[in-house]
Order: sequence, then C-alpha cells, then structure tokens
Amino acid sequence: MKFLKEDQVAVFALGGMGEIGKNTYGIQYRDEIIVIDAGIKFPEDELLGIDYVIPDYTYLVKNVEKIKGVFITHGHEDHIGGIPYLLRQINVPIYGGKLAIGLIKNKLEEHGLLRQAKLIDIKEDDVIKFKHLSVEFYRTTHSIPDAYGIVVKTPQGNIVHTGDFKFDFTPVGEPANLTKMAEIGKEGVLCLMSDSTNSEIPDFTMSERRVGESIHDIFRKVDGRIIFATFASNIHRLQQVVEAAVKNNRKVVVFGRSMEAAIEIGLELGYIKAPKDTFIDASQINRLPSNQVTILCTGSQGEPMAALSRIANGTHRQIQINHGDTVVFSSSPIPGNTISVSRVINALYRAGAEVIYGPLSDIHTSGHGGQQEQKLMLRLMKPKFFMPIHGEYRMLKMHTKLAIDCGVKPENNFIMDNGDVLVLTKDEAYIGGKIPSGSVYVDGNGIGDIGNIVLRDRRILSEEGLVIVVVSIDMKEFKIKAGPDLISRGFVYMRESSDLINDAQNLIAEHLEKIMERKTTQWSEIKNEITDVLGPFLYEKTKRKPMILPIIMEV
Amino acid sequence: MKFLKEDQVAVFALGGMGEIGKNTYGIQYRDEIIVIDAGIKFPEDELLGIDYVIPDYTYLVKNVEKIKGVFITHGHEDHIGGIPYLLRQINVPIYGGKLAIGLIKNKLEEHGLLRQAKLIDIKEDDVIKFKHLSVEFYRTTHSIPDAYGIVVKTPQGNIVHTGDFKFDFTPVGEPANLTKMAEIGKEGVLCLMSDSTNSEIPDFTMSERRVGESIHDIFRKVDGRIIFATFASNIHRLQQVVEAAVKNNRKVVVFGRSMEAAIEIGLELGYIKAPKDTFIDASQINRLPSNQVTILCTGSQGEPMAALSRIANGTHRQIQINHGDTVVFSSSPIPGNTISVSRVINALYRAGAEVIYGPLSDIHTSGHGGQQEQKLMLRLMKPKFFMPIHGEYRMLKMHTKLAIDCGVKPENNFIMDNGDVLVLTKDEAYIGGKIPSGSVYVDGNGIGDIGNIVLRDRRILSEEGLVIVVVSIDMKEFKIKAGPDLISRGFVYMRESSDLINDAQNLIAEHLEKIMERKTTQWSEIKNEITDVLGPFLYEKTKRKPMILPIIMEV
Repeated sequence: MKFLKEDQVAVFALGGMGEIGKNTYGIQYRDEIIVIDAGIKFPEDELLGIDYVIPDYTYLVKNVEKIKGVFITHGHEDHIGGIPYLLRQINVPIYGGKLAIGLIKNKLEEHGLLRQAKLIDIKEDDVIKFKHLSVEFYRTTHSIPDAYGIVVKTPQGNIVHTGDFKFDFTPVGEPANLTKMAEIGKEGVLCLMSDSTNSEIPDFTMSERRVGESIHDIFRKVDGRIIFATFASNIHRLQQVVEAAVKNNRKVVVFGRSMEAAIEIGLELGYIKAPKDTFIDASQINRLPSNQVTILCTGSQGEPMAALSRIANGTHRQIQINHGDTVVFSSSPIPGNTISVSRVINALYRAGAEVIYGPLSDIHTSGHGGQQEQKLMLRLMKPKFFMPIHGEYRMLKMHTKLAIDCGVKPENNFIMDNGDVLVLTKDEAYIGGKIPSGSVYVDGNGIGDIGNIVLRDRRILSEEGLVIVVVSIDMKEFKIKAGPDLISRGFVYMRESSDLINDAQNLIAEHLEKIMERKTTQWSEIKNEITDVLGPFLYEKTKRKPMILPIIMEV
Repeated sequence: MKFLKEDQVAVFALGGMGEIGKNTYGIQYRDEIIVIDAGIKFPEDELLGIDYVIPDYTYLVKNVEKIKGVFITHGHEDHIGGIPYLLRQINVPIYGGKLAIGLIKNKLEEHGLLRQAKLIDIKEDDVIKFKHLSVEFYRTTHSIPDAYGIVVKTPQGNIVHTGDFKFDFTPVGEPANLTKMAEIGKEGVLCLMSDSTNSEIPDFTMSERRVGESIHDIFRKVDGRIIFATFASNIHRLQQVVEAAVKNNRKVVVFGRSMEAAIEIGLELGYIKAPKDTFIDASQINRLPSNQVTILCTGSQGEPMAALSRIANGTHRQIQINHGDTVVFSSSPIPGNTISVSRVINALYRAGAEVIYGPLSDIHTSGHGGQQEQKLMLRLMKPKFFMPIHGEYRMLKMHTKLAIDCGVKPENNFIMDNGDVLVLTKDEAYIGGKIPSGSVYVDGNGIGDIGNIVLRDRRILSEEGLVIVVVSIDMKEFKIKAGPDLISRGFVYMRESSDLINDAQNLIAEHLEKIMERKTTQWSEIKNEITDVLGPFLYEKTKRKPMILPIIMEV
C-alpha cells in the first residue's frame, strides 16, 4: 500500500461493499493489519452452477506477516464461510465469540484444517493488545446469538465496526450493551462502519420476543402435528420453539443437517435448554399422537434439496404431509428465493396442510435494524467519519443520508467499493488508492477455475441450446470423409425436426465442398464457414441463435 | 365432454388455475361455449430461453363449432396475449372493451392476423344473446382502464366472472359499478369466479388517486430532470404523470416501444389529454432546461433490454444519467424480478441519480384487491357456489377461507386445476371430469416444439456444462482413426485444464481399444463406454457432473 503514509490508518474491504455477502474488512496501521470477518457470498442466478463466491485474498496473502488476526463479529456464513479458503493460503489466528468459534471449528473439521488452526474464544470485556492497535468488543443483538461489534483503537482514533445488528430491547438471550456503546461514543469514534442491510426499511424491527409470543400462540392452539421451518442459525428462535414444545407437551424431531448441527451446538453452549427426552428420533414419530409431535426442519427458503421441500413434494423418506398438519414458515424469503418459497407453500396446501407464513402472521423478524435503529447507532457512536458497509449500493447510499440527518458532515461520508482504501488521520479522511480485489468462484472442488468464459458459455447454452457440427476431413487430399453431421442439445427436438437438420447438413456440405476446392484451406476457415452459414440459416428458420460448435476430425 | 348431462352447465379453466398467467376460462351449456379471456404466461426461470407459455387449446379446437365468442375482461397480456395463437387455430369472434380491442388489434397486426379477425367492441350495458346463454358486463376498477366483470346467464343460473379487480373509490377514470354489482347479487349468483391474486394481503389497496398525489408532490418539488418508469399498460398512471408534467411546465419524452404504443392508444381513446406540444422528441431534450424535462420510460421491472436498465448502465443511445436526475419507480417488483430491479436501482445511484421507490414512498398501488376487497365482492355477489381463479394454489386456498367467512358453505367452494370441469345445476355442483389441458411453450418462431427434453438439456448445460468426446472409427476394421478428442463448453477453461483433458483422453482411448478388440462392438456400446468411463473420472477429479456427449464419426 504505497500511498499509505506512516502515521495514517487505512480502512478497506475485500468483500461486503456493494453486495450482501463475503464480508471481509481490514484496518491497517504501519506493520499491523486487523481483519474483520471472512465470509462467503451465495451466487446470483446467472452464476450458473457456482456454489460460493469468496473474495480475492491476494492482498492478505501478500501481507500475511502484518496480519495480527481475523476478528469475527458473529457466526453467519457471510461472515465466517470464507475462513477455510483463507486458511488454506495463510495461517492466521481467528478470534471470535464462543458460538462463532464453535461453528468455525465444525467447518474447519469438514475441510481437514482444524488441527493447525489457531482459534481463540473472546469475551465481551477482553482487550486484545498489539504493538500499535488494540481490539475490544461490545455485545449486540442479531438473528444469531453471541454477536459483537468490534472497536479497533488506533493512534489516530477509534474505529468501530458494528457487525450485523438490530436493537431488540426484549431479546431472547443477552441484550445489546447500550451502556458500553454510549461510552465508546463518548470516548470518541473517528470512523463508524455500520450495517446497511435494512437502510430502506423505515420501521423499527419487531422484537424476537414478539415472535416468541406468536410461536407460543400457535403451539397452544394447533391440534395436529406442527412442522416448523426456520433459519438454523437463529438459535434463539430454535430455543423458543423448543420451549413452546415442552410447554405444550410436544416432542421435537429435527430434520436437516444444518438444523441438527445448530441444535447440537445450542444445547452444548447452553442456549437451548430442554429435558433430556424432548428430542426424539424420526422412527418414534408414528408412535405419538399427532398433537405431541413437532418437526423442526430446514427449507424455509424453499431450497429444493432441504427437508421441507422434499416433505412438500412427497420425496422425503420419513415424513409425508398428513391432513391436519400445520406448517410454520418462521422466515422471510431472501430476494431471489420468493418463487422457490411460493412453490413449497403451494405444494404444502395441495397436500392438505395448513400453512402459516408472513406477512399475515408475526412469525419472523429481521436480524438487521431499520432506519430508526441505524440512526440510534449513529447517535450513540457520534462518529466523525462514516463508512456504510454490508449492503448493496442503494443501501449504502440511503445509509449515508441517515448519517447526514444525524450530524455527520456530508463530505465525511464515504461510499466505498471493494478494494478502495480510506486513508484516515484524526483530522482528515480521503480515498487514497486501491488494493487488489475481486471475486473468486468456488464450484465443486475447483476454486477459481470457473472464469467468465465458462459462465458465459453456460448462459448461452441455457438460453438457446447448442448445435454441434462434426465433419471428418482428410486434410492431405482436402476431401470430406464423413459428415457434416448435426447434433443438437437444448435446441430443437431432433426427431421432430429432421427436415431442418437435413437441410442444414446439405447446406453446410455444399459450402464446405466449395471452399475445399481451393486446397489451401485452413482449419479455422472451415470452422468459420460452418458458423457463418449455419447461424443465419437457423435464425431464419427458427428465430433462435443456438451456440454453434464446429468440430473437425482430421483423418 | 361425455360426462356433461344435457341440463348441466360446465365451468372450466385451460389456464389461470394454480398460476398467475394464461387466463383462459370456459362456460359450456349444451352446444354453446363462452370463452372468457385468452392470455399468456411469462415463463419461470427454469424455462430457459422460452418466450411465452400458452395453454393447450385442444379442447377449444375440437369444439370450435360450439364457441360463440371469446369475451375479454381487460387488456393485460395475461388476458389477451394468447389471442394470436388461438386465432391461428380457430377463427372465433372476440368481444371486449374499447381499449382491450385496440390493444388486440395492434397485436393481431403484428402477427398478420388482423384482416380475417372478427373483433367486436362492447359497452357496459350491452347484452349479447345466444340461443341458451347470454353475456352481460359491469365496470370494474383495475390497473388498466376499461376493465369489466362478466356475467354469463345460463338456464341453471347466473355465473359471474370478476375479471381482475380492486375497489378504488376515488379512481382516475370511471368508478366501478357497485350499483350494478349489487343488482346482480340480488338477482342471484349461482357461481362466482373471483380474482385471487392478493388473497394473502390483509389491507385494502391504496387508491390510484393517492399515487397521483405523490406524483404531483414529486413533480412540484424536484428540480432537475424526472425519469419516470412504470407499467405501460397502466394508462391512468401515465395520465397522472402527463397531467403533473403539464401542471409543472415540463415536456414529456417517451422511451420504450410498449410505452409509446400505450401513450398513442391512450391519446386516441381519450384517456390521456394533453396540449399538442406536451410530447417532444428525444432530440429536443438537450435544448430544454433540466427542470422542464420528463422522461417516461419502460423498465420498471429491471428488464435488461428495456429503456431504464440501458439508461442506468450507460448503454442507452440517447439518454445518460446526469447528476441531479430523479428516477421514479412507480411500480413494485413482480416475484422473480426483485434482483433485476435492485440492480437497476444500484446502477442509478452509482451514476448519481436520486431514486424514489417503494416501500418508502406511496408511488405505486396494486391493481388487485386485498382481502377486504375480495370480501366486499363476496358480500355484493352472495354466490351459492364459489370458484377462486387467477392465482397460485395458496392464493386460491386463502380465498376460499374468505368465502367461508362470508357465508359460502364450505362444501360449495371449489379449488380447481386447469382442465378440471365443474358441473353445475341450480341445486348442486361437483367436479365431473377433466378435459385436455397443459402448457405449450413458445420460443422464437416455434410453438410447442420445445419440449421437456430440450428444457432438461438446457438446464444441465446451464448448471454443469458440456463435454463432447469425438472419435473417428473405421467400423470395418474396428480401428480408431482419430481422437478421442475432448471439447468442453461451460465446464472448465480448457487452457488451464490441459492435464485433466489429456488424462481423460488417454483414459477413454485405453478403454475404447479394449472394447474394439472384440470386433463385434456396436455404436451404442462405444458411446456407453465413453460415458461410463468419463463421468466418474471427471466427478472424482472435479466434483462436477457435466453433460457428456459422445460423437462417433464413422470413416
């Protein structure tokens, strides 16, 4: 970072700016870097067949000796999912709350990286001191327990990273530490980095306790089986379900790998408390009357392979929908999942279930604060400089408007892109330069080998299909030995389109014979001739533009 | 319809049940069929590369001599878009309000079908009599002008089809005819077919007049250019924009084919009134001060090819975003379009525009009534039997709950699928049987030739990519003459994966030589051997399952 002067502090993101996902932030001073969070992003629809997106870690790898640690705000995938991929490249200590570290341990074990990892539990009052920088924490409320904001103290001033937050004044579990937040604000905040997810929502988010009341209402009134789908990571929500079940004399059976893992870690760390016999096996369901059964499962986003979708479609090995079942969607569809969720709800109704879902019921609340909560954070922290994080551009933009309304000077707001570096002293801040950044695609075993070319191909293939033209040519005699044969996939149904295929083959054969007569023809000319002839012919006949792939076998 | 007795009335849908789109309903008595609406459906995401979905019209084609006419409730695509495809098969008269008929004329002209079509304008008080059945209309309010409900009078009783409706008591344009609706209810409604789209929304929808007030507010306060995106078919909304523009001394320039067509037909039919010089050309924009410019355009759903997306991305030939521009999204994202809309909003902000969109502004309202309005319709019509229409299963299901709350006996509610036939007399109703029904895909020029096989192929291609194995074989001598060559598309980037490709080719070559030694090998065996060897090999190396396409050239 050549542009960084010795007394300046640099703040940057490798992921999380202009997007929801792969949160990875950095604060650098002289020879020390604090990294905050290391998440993954789930791909958008046209990243066809991609499993995850991680940030380009080049800058961290090149500066590994400066990295004092990765500090984790909370255990959601978009904050911890990148850790295995980071640790494959550099071995740096990971600090986090007990739940986040627990979830990270499971993850590293799956990747075979646990043994060499350095994982450190922190508590709210811990102070982690390095030569120049030191790190402190404050408790916050979010849709997963054990969530923290992070304070990085630098010689130029204090930088606060809110983590993901809402203000829930009647939470399940520990309340947010408003007292400490106010003290931090009083001491002075040079720069505030704050969660922008719900910047466009004017209201205060509902308390988790209200959701709990709705859950208890449902458990009290419903007679048959209850099938409850929610985000596995919302361990407080699971706790409320388990409590309602116990109170209403119901057992709980759990389906879905992430749900089982969440219950396990919840019981282990004491978030979920229940009598030993509360949780039962799938095999015991049928021995109980239906009003003593609760099924807790994954699939609240309509994910086709998760438990709930399979139950709805009748393809789940152990559970089918019975008349009298009540299904609760204690969730809300993430943008992009609306149609998947609709499908599952339709299927559940068709199968005879009663379905409870928003917005007609108070059965879910967001983990991210709306405008009122974001303004409360701004008024507590009273920052000099403001950097909205964790949001798409429009969310970051809206958040700066709120900051201006709350007393931050317009010129002291910075909407950053991944890779931008904000350079700070106690008196001024400006974007000083850029560091390498980008997206790396993880697909199956491969990390980074699915590039834009492959994705573009998949896109054309998915929309228009493919026509392959194979021809065997004797390149010494310039004679066609076999073909041209046309084979199509995803274009037309060959059997019904034999006329079209035949005409195309004849047309190509004619053109090829003509150019072969020259006897000086190159391979590339032959391929181009095929594409130039076939493309317009197919478009004229079908109004479609499939990908054309000429293959020449030299015999 | 063998199961239909001579005195019974049949009611069925070929499209519109369990879905939003391709609304096509039928009422049959003896030798007369009344068809209500003929729409298209826009494909869901995994109908890759499909343009539209239309219903299978087999039943109508087979019974063409019975069809007295197609009666259109209003001019939205999901009610009129199928007409060209229907008229290609059978020539039947089309009845509709002036706007719907005008839009249908444009459509038929594009398809070259206008000359032979029989199109009849109707007015609200018209009574269209046939031998046994007769058809009447009542005005309703929706998000397009000239929308009607339809009453079909049969010897067994009256059947009411609501069309799409909301209750807007302060509409732009004609109010709904509550008086006539109450009279129809008083006369007696045997069966009510009612719009279920917003069954899950508890509130009364906002009036179009309130949206108009917001529009006037914006036009009064904003200083620079206003770029206004909305649904072109909402001609009353366009009218309010034009009025606000005129009132605030702004000219209007229109971008987008459907928007231009809507303004044209709106002016022609008198829905939009403006001084002659209100509408200007794109070329005149730069001669006006920015606070005298309104740009009215398509793209409120984030459609990549529509005007607004191109303006946002900087690829529109005539318009770029300037600082000080205000963009208004007078719309709400249809499920499935949320991400596209977000993208455009982000891009507009980045380009320096101010953006106004819901839910923070009263800048749009739905054209479909919520629960309160649906219950109002039920209480006005007081039907004996109830058939919810125009909705996914969960919307139909919720609508029947409302009907029961409003006095319809539980057993008199019928949730139908496309193709189900409800058989009615004045005393009873039951599902008597089925008629042929289904979805037909329209893609480019082809109607119906994109079957499930082609779609499945496109899906695999899009998610996993394709590996082609080409080998030239002399089938007389059972010798490999050339290849096997591996070519991949959308799988791995060939240049970076040469080791993988080479290993795969060698592996296949080994196996093929072995089986060729038998000298009795069939083509199909060779292809299977390639797939059986290559599939597991690629999965082991990459954890991916591309489509494998073996091609054998016989030389």
